[in-house]
Amino acid sequence: MVNETQHTCSASSSSKSDGGSSSGSESSKDSSRCSTPVLDADRHERLREKMRRRQDSGDKWFSLEFFPPRTANAAVNLISRFDRMGAGGPLFIDVTWHPAGDPGSDKETSSMIIANTAVSYCGLETILHMTCCNQTKDDITGHLQKAKRLGLKNIMALRGDPAGEEWEEEKDGFNYAVDLVKHIRNEFDDYFDICVAGYPKGHPEAESYEADLRHLKEKVFAGADFIITQLFFRSETFLKFMKDCQAIGITCPIIPGIFPIQGYHSLRQLVKLSKLEVPQEIKDVIEPIKDNDAAIRNYGVELAVSMCRELLDSGMVHGLHFYTLNREVATTEVLKRLGIWKEDPRRPLPWAVSAHPKRRVEDVRPIFWASRPKSYIYRTQEWDDFPNGRWGNSSSPAFGELKDYYLFYLKSKSPREELLKMWGEELTGEESVFEVFTCYITGEPNKNGYKVTCMPWNDDPLATETNLLKEQLEKVNRRGILTINSQPNINGKPSTDPIVGWGPSGGYVFQKAYLEFFTSSEIVTALLKVLKKYELRVNYHIVNVKGQNITNAPDLQPNAVTWGIFPGREIIQPTVVDPVSFLSWKDEAFALWIEQWAKLYEEESPSRMIIQYIHDNYYLVNLVDNDFPLENCLWQVVDDTFELLN
Amino acid sequence: MVNETQHTCSASSSSKSDGGSSSGSESSKDSSRCSTPVLDADRHERLREKMRRRQDSGDKWFSLEFFPPRTANAAVNLISRFDRMGAGGPLFIDVTWHPAGDPGSDKETSSMIIANTAVSYCGLETILHMTCCNQTKDDITGHLQKAKRLGLKNIMALRGDPAGEEWEEEKDGFNYAVDLVKHIRNEFDDYFDICVAGYPKGHPEAESYEADLRHLKEKVFAGADFIITQLFFRSETFLKFMKDCQAIGITCPIIPGIFPIQGYHSLRQLVKLSKLEVPQEIKDVIEPIKDNDAAIRNYGVELAVSMCRELLDSGMVHGLHFYTLNREVATTEVLKRLGIWKEDPRRPLPWAVSAHPKRRVEDVRPIFWASRPKSYIYRTQEWDDFPNGRWGNSSSPAFGELKDYYLFYLKSKSPREELLKMWGEELTGEESVFEVFTCYITGEPNKNGYKVTCMPWNDDPLATETNLLKEQLEKVNRRGILTINSQPNINGKPSTDPIVGWGPSGGYVFQKAYLEFFTSSEIVTALLKVLKKYELRVNYHIVNVKGQNITNAPDLQPNAVTWGIFPGREIIQPTVVDPVSFLSWKDEAFALWIEQWAKLYEEESPSRMIIQYIHDNYYLVNLVDNDFPLENCLWQVVDDTFELLN
Repeated sequence: MVNETQHTCSASSSSKSDGGSSSGSESSKDSSRCSTPVLDADRHERLREKMRRRQDSGDKWFSLEFFPPRTANAAVNLISRFDRMGAGGPLFIDVTWHPAGDPGSDKETSSMIIANTAVSYCGLETILHMTCCNQTKDDITGHLQKAKRLGLKNIMALRGDPAGEEWEEEKDGFNYAVDLVKHIRNEFDDYFDICVAGYPKGHPEAESYEADLRHLKEKVFAGADFIITQLFFRSETFLKFMKDCQAIGITCPIIPGIFPIQGYHSLRQLVKLSKLEVPQEIKDVIEPIKDNDAAIRNYGVELAVSMCRELLDSGMVHGLHFYTLNREVATTEVLKRLGIWKEDPRRPLPWAVSAHPKRRVEDVRPIFWASRPKSYIYRTQEWDDFPNGRWGNSSSPAFGELKDYYLFYLKSKSPREELLKMWGEELTGEESVFEVFTCYITGEPNKNGYKVTCMPWNDDPLATETNLLKEQLEKVNRRGILTINSQPNINGKPSTDPIVGWGPSGGYVFQKAYLEFFTSSEIVTALLKVLKKYELRVNYHIVNVKGQNITNAPDLQPNAVTWGIFPGREIIQPTVVDPVSFLSWKDEAFALWIEQWAKLYEEESPSRMIIQYIHDNYYLVNLVDNDFPLENCLWQVVDDTFELLN
Repeated sequence: MVNETQHTCSASSSSKSDGGSSSGSESSKDSSRCSTPVLDADRHERLREKMRRRQDSGDKWFSLEFFPPRTANAAVNLISRFDRMGAGGPLFIDVTWHPAGDPGSDKETSSMIIANTAVSYCGLETILHMTCCNQTKDDITGHLQKAKRLGLKNIMALRGDPAGEEWEEEKDGFNYAVDLVKHIRNEFDDYFDICVAGYPKGHPEAESYEADLRHLKEKVFAGADFIITQLFFRSETFLKFMKDCQAIGITCPIIPGIFPIQGYHSLRQLVKLSKLEVPQEIKDVIEPIKDNDAAIRNYGVELAVSMCRELLDSGMVHGLHFYTLNREVATTEVLKRLGIWKEDPRRPLPWAVSAHPKRRVEDVRPIFWASRPKSYIYRTQEWDDFPNGRWGNSSSPAFGELKDYYLFYLKSKSPREELLKMWGEELTGEESVFEVFTCYITGEPNKNGYKVTCMPWNDDPLATETNLLKEQLEKVNRRGILTINSQPNINGKPSTDPIVGWGPSGGYVFQKAYLEFFTSSEIVTALLKVLKKYELRVNYHIVNVKGQNITNAPDLQPNAVTWGIFPGREIIQPTVVDPVSFLSWKDEAFALWIEQWAKLYEEESPSRMIIQYIHDNYYLVNLVDNDFPLENCLWQVVDDTFELLN
């Protein structure tokens, strides 16, 4: 939000769109059988309630503004940034609306899709900006319906920049933000939380500061829930504005927009767009250091920190909104120095919870996608509901088509060159593949000196928890047990345990040891002999790309491998080894060999043929040691297998 | 089944009753989310499948025949006998049909209701006999529909004794058992398993032994699943019969009916009814000892054991059917001596599972009715299904009306005089009530020398598990904490543990400590102060008869207090403290003071007023210690409370 105009207006619409279900009636049924024992009340609150609760509790908070990226690669990076900056605990993020960038489309770079990604995949409370000028009512209703469908619950209602210099009001059109606010309330009742823009210095196009305040009041009275302000350079500017707002009866939350100066050029551009004047004392500091980015950023951080402190100390401000310009360092630095960057190691569930309203009752996932949660969410996004916390009664839950699989959110974040450095420019045999897996586990550089920081089956570097198993994992990968997922057994650690804990305090968490790997048919033959000895203790599923399936699981029942016991609640079992979804995962896991790895190499090249060979001939194996109170026996199983082979 | 006639006949019916759902389509949906992780495959099999499986595995089995009682008190005793004899592991029991006793009615002594009791409350696989002669098609269809509705899945199809000497076939009527078999198959497809009677000596009214065999074959070919025979006195008689059956193409199971001679008169009566001849060698033994019941029974047991051994040793017999005459000793003795009485200490769930098909997915119950399971089943019998293993989505599950409460299956088994001896002919104050509770716990006689073996809130003597808590329970009851339910905490004992274990082997069971008691408002006031110290650890619900409800449970979520972890399965949590059903239990628990105890005394008598005072003024309290891995703190809570009071 850099430049917004507003005027009074009288446009309004009458017909309701989106049927009878538009009144935000997502409230869950009261029930003495709650499929999702409420671990995180927050998850069920709407944004304005969260804001109110934070204000009442005196808890300071922050929010982060991003704009949509221009390219697919930039989108991948932005999503990683959402994950990293989301870890600091923003109350929400918001995504601006770029009319030029087809903002409501299905492109991976559109405002709509980026906001959806933030909600669904990153689990962030998100506000989608939306501008209304030069658009038809149908267009706008369509955007809002789509936003609702994609799980977005908050809209920042803006006018947008009129096209052309000679802009004139359209009769019955959307001329001002207030028209959009009214339209949203008319068509969607109370479904959305609505935010509007405030201008501490008055909007540059407004007749006067006072007239602009009156326009703001109109927007609020038309149904806006809170206000985010344009950036400003002095805390007094905001505090005076806030008092003036209150004086004319605006009582909703007003959130100051903070712009940490990050560079000379970005500042100049922003000032030009927003028609704001940079105070002389700031110009005086910046001009002499204008070519020294680091110096300017340090100064910007200092300036922002001291202004934020004044705002917070005033007692009038509970939350701060940051214009990040999609950059991480300056904003994070300011937040950390203010002490409101709060990395909370506690997790409501062992996996990151999506913020999509449809998924709020979701409390069980198959373990297979543990390292590819975005793929899981993507592939299950068409599920209408999550009865029993997940896929309900169907014996074959539809995990999306594998053709969807190659879509944007599932692809590797790293460019081809980097992947080749990590996974080998040229493979000389299966052993070179073993070597890649081993380097990923150990964190040691490969023979060309590059660290292997990701694998096709893992979005991220190795989980801390997996580190507990590092030594054993290294040993087995070196010998061709190519591990892609594992967890140690846990027998009742406190739910506050920094590594394996999750859920509210006062509880205990448990795990069954789990190991999942690709391996050759020779090893599988030996493994099956060994597993006979462990028949009553270890459950296994062994499958190849053709679907040949060997298992000792008696039926299609899932095996709970992670569960927690909490005060006053039912048992929560968020991770299962589910035989049905394993077959969907199998398709994905084998396809990743080809799509992410083999295709790095020329067709018919020896490297490609090695990966193809593994794809065609290896088995995907999962093992669960059911006897969680005893020492994990899966390593013994593997050792016995190697011994049998020798 | 003592006297049955059969002939060929041609009656058959055409129209289907009972709508489209009559084809036994109770099969559970295949699902990767199984609300009842299958602990006991047996529970989902029909009788003929169980029989087949036992035969295939070479496992010998037995079944027990009972007749309906004449009086309500006799029914109470018979149900206790079902429980005791059910413990020996019969494959099924069967209940005879007494046309003179209004067998299809809702009376507590009717064949229909006794069979329903055996299924629903005692968890026994049950066959209901049904005779057809002198009945209209509509009557019979009505009985069958009712049987189905009451959870009965097996019918023994019989002709019954014609009324009057001059019986003649009715045209288009039900003249023979085969008519009934055909009718059942016509009207209910494959819903029922059907049993028919076989006569090792030929039916007394049959033209010949061979003709009778042909009639039997007709019954089988009309749709009967297996045969139970009339009693006989020599194993050769049965073995010849069986070979003759096989010779003419009868391949279904044929189960020999065994009659252990239990007394001179009952034998004479039976012989008269069945028109069988007692072999001379038996008469020779019995006549001289005809006035010595014990001697005759001993002889009868010997005779039955040796005949059964011969049958089992022949390799042709896998199961034995016992005509118990509703007596326990002789049959149990025979079974124990044969080694096929198998008390299995393993329990599929910590509570006894009902055999009603509607309840087969039930896997969760509130802990409150733990000592009154029949009351729980009775009060929930109208529930249509058990989604999520219990009461589904409603926030206020209907636990039946309290007026139902006084009905037959919920009343005390002991007569008034016995109860007065146990609970006091005359009470002198609240302390005399404390004394009764204390004696129940300790097992010591009361001051009049009588042991207190039951209480209004407990159908049975103290559970073995409660014995683990005996010392503490005695101490607190003596001081006016009148405990009615409790369980110790358990932190991962093997599922095969003889006292607290349940579920399949290889698992681990857990419990949170639970204590439920009545106590005075003075003690509650102190208790509430003490509980502040335990706020994060102990959940409590404290309620009086008027419904005043004090709790620190944050919402209406149930608290799982018993759960188990098993190989290859989801977590099973069969017992919960459920805040919603606690309020229904509260009504029942308070009503028991009046209905079972106060009403033993004259109106206005001091004893009655003491109980009435407790009913009106005491609170019902339940406490859960959520920290199951630590030492149970509930005793400390109670000690602290007494300390505060001193």
